Amino acid sequence: MLNILFSAQPERWDEYKGPLNAAFATAGLQANIARDHAPEAVDYIIFAPNGPVTDFSPYTKTKAVLSLWAGVETVVDNPTLTQPLCRLVDPSLTAGMVEWVTGHTLRHHLGMDHHIRKQDGVWEERFPPLARKRPVTILGTGALGAACGQAIHALGFPVTGWSRTAKELPNIRHLHGQDGLQAALSGAEIVILLLPQTPATENILNAETLALLAPGAFIINPGRGPLIDDDALLAALDSGQVGHATLDVFRTEPLPAAHPYWAHPSVTVTPHIASTTRPDTAAQIICENISRAEAGQPLKHVVDRNRRY
Amino acid sequence: MLNILFSAQPERWDEYKGPLNAAFATAGLQANIARDHAPEAVDYIIFAPNGPVTDFSPYTKTKAVLSLWAGVETVVDNPTLTQPLCRLVDPSLTAGMVEWVTGHTLRHHLGMDHHIRKQDGVWEERFPPLARKRPVTILGTGALGAACGQAIHALGFPVTGWSRTAKELPNIRHLHGQDGLQAALSGAEIVILLLPQTPATENILNAETLALLAPGAFIINPGRGPLIDDDALLAALDSGQVGHATLDVFRTEPLPAAHPYWAHPSVTVTPHIASTTRPDTAAQIICENISRAEAGQPLKHVVDRNRRY
Repeated sequence: MLNILFSAQPERWDEYKGPLNAAFATAGLQANIARDHAPEAVDYIIFAPNGPVTDFSPYTKTKAVLSLWAGVETVVDNPTLTQPLCRLVDPSLTAGMVEWVTGHTLRHHLGMDHHIRKQDGVWEERFPPLARKRPVTILGTGALGAACGQAIHALGFPVTGWSRTAKELPNIRHLHGQDGLQAALSGAEIVILLLPQTPATENILNAETLALLAPGAFIINPGRGPLIDDDALLAALDSGQVGHATLDVFRTEPLPAAHPYWAHPSVTVTPHIASTTRPDTAAQIICENISRAEAGQPLKHVVDRNRRY
Repeated sequence: MLNILFSAQPERWDEYKGPLNAAFATAGLQANIARDHAPEAVDYIIFAPNGPVTDFSPYTKTKAVLSLWAGVETVVDNPTLTQPLCRLVDPSLTAGMVEWVTGHTLRHHLGMDHHIRKQDGVWEERFPPLARKRPVTILGTGALGAACGQAIHALGFPVTGWSRTAKELPNIRHLHGQDGLQAALSGAEIVILLLPQTPATENILNAETLALLAPGAFIINPGRGPLIDDDALLAALDSGQVGHATLDVFRTEPLPAAHPYWAHPSVTVTPHIASTTRPDTAAQIICENISRAEAGQPLKHVVDRNRRY
């Protein structure tokens, strides 16, 4: 019998207990999944950064901490966390992100806001260019960025991807490193941020890099708030260098009501809804990873503490 | 030397003369393309319904009329038109339509308008279902409808297509005929209209068929205005049976400023911009069709006068 601690916000338990118990039953693994195990008896922790566990040191026999979130920046530096930490890579989270990113890419490409807002009886034809003439750059080509890139490519957009290290991706011009960043952003008309939050990615969009974009470019940030230098973005929006920014994540969440992003006419704030973990698929993925560990196989998606994701 | 009459709105000539001359030069066909040939000398007519030619009887040696528009409902019944009439099937027109239809499908799916309009500083998480739980029905599965269906399927939506006659399309549940129409609309959450305008398709969305949809369904009409019974749609919008309609085409265009669609909070009017013919690709396609005829091959996309498209 495995003792599995569920350490997320209490209201999540109602959504998760059914799918988790079903997944373990289907996998044939005896598991006692609960919110209140004695720490020294816990085999695995299912973890969210906003749940009750913040000190991992009493969990002396815990074999792994399995995050319910894709982003782990708030726990990766916790000095008490000596156990392996696994990120969630959930096809449902990816699917939701692809829908949101593709939708907002097309929204800005087509100039939808103009029509949504301007129902004034004036008939005024304006045609956007075809997608094939609208270069899109995605910073971050992990599971989420790569999937978004494929969907956006399939609609005809030329897609450039950028990440820390070199990689090959079908249908995407892939660049890396500091020189690659400059080339990836130069002339981009739509920029999508899906990088992990690390010291190396903080403020990656700043006054200097924003100046590389095509004038009037669109920014879409479903990644993490600190990827953007907020003052530099506000200045670029005011000057017109950036035409519109759709921002789902922020340095402080909820975004305070007095923050200038809310009132800026060229910013759309969305409340961290670009995608979410869905209990049924997340439960299966976590169960599968624990099953692997119990069968002596390596865990999937273990966070590299140096790389920080 | 072929005499080719360009009969579209005068302002189109500036856009088309370069691409047309270039296409014929590349094809090695000697052609005198102009807006003012003597009717009896004209070999082919490049035609738009809003251009100057309305009586085709003086064009006694004209071998074909090649439309610059995909929809031919305003010319198909012209009794003077005895020459073969070809519709335009243009991959650029299709690409633009796929972008517009996919964009507005995602817009309604994700509930974007709520966020675009509501920048009030209130942080309120609401997650849409995944696309896989949002059934989409496309009425009309010709070149445009079929391409939109593939793009929407690729994003995860379950897609049902419907047309007059039976056909097989990959990734799409295809239905046809009157019984098929009822099944195609029953429970649909997003309905896209891409049918040709014929007596059989007029008012295909009416009080009875709108009642089949899932409550709060979204209507997207980039097809033709008369496909919808406007009074029935307004009643369904007022009752909430239809959640929102995005309409690009109307019985009268430009849509009069006093039309209730403009003022309705659940209608987005767009000014017939879902897609457009692009001169460079259209010129090549028309040149290719004339080349086929001159080489004794059958013309492509000849309109069937009985079927009316």
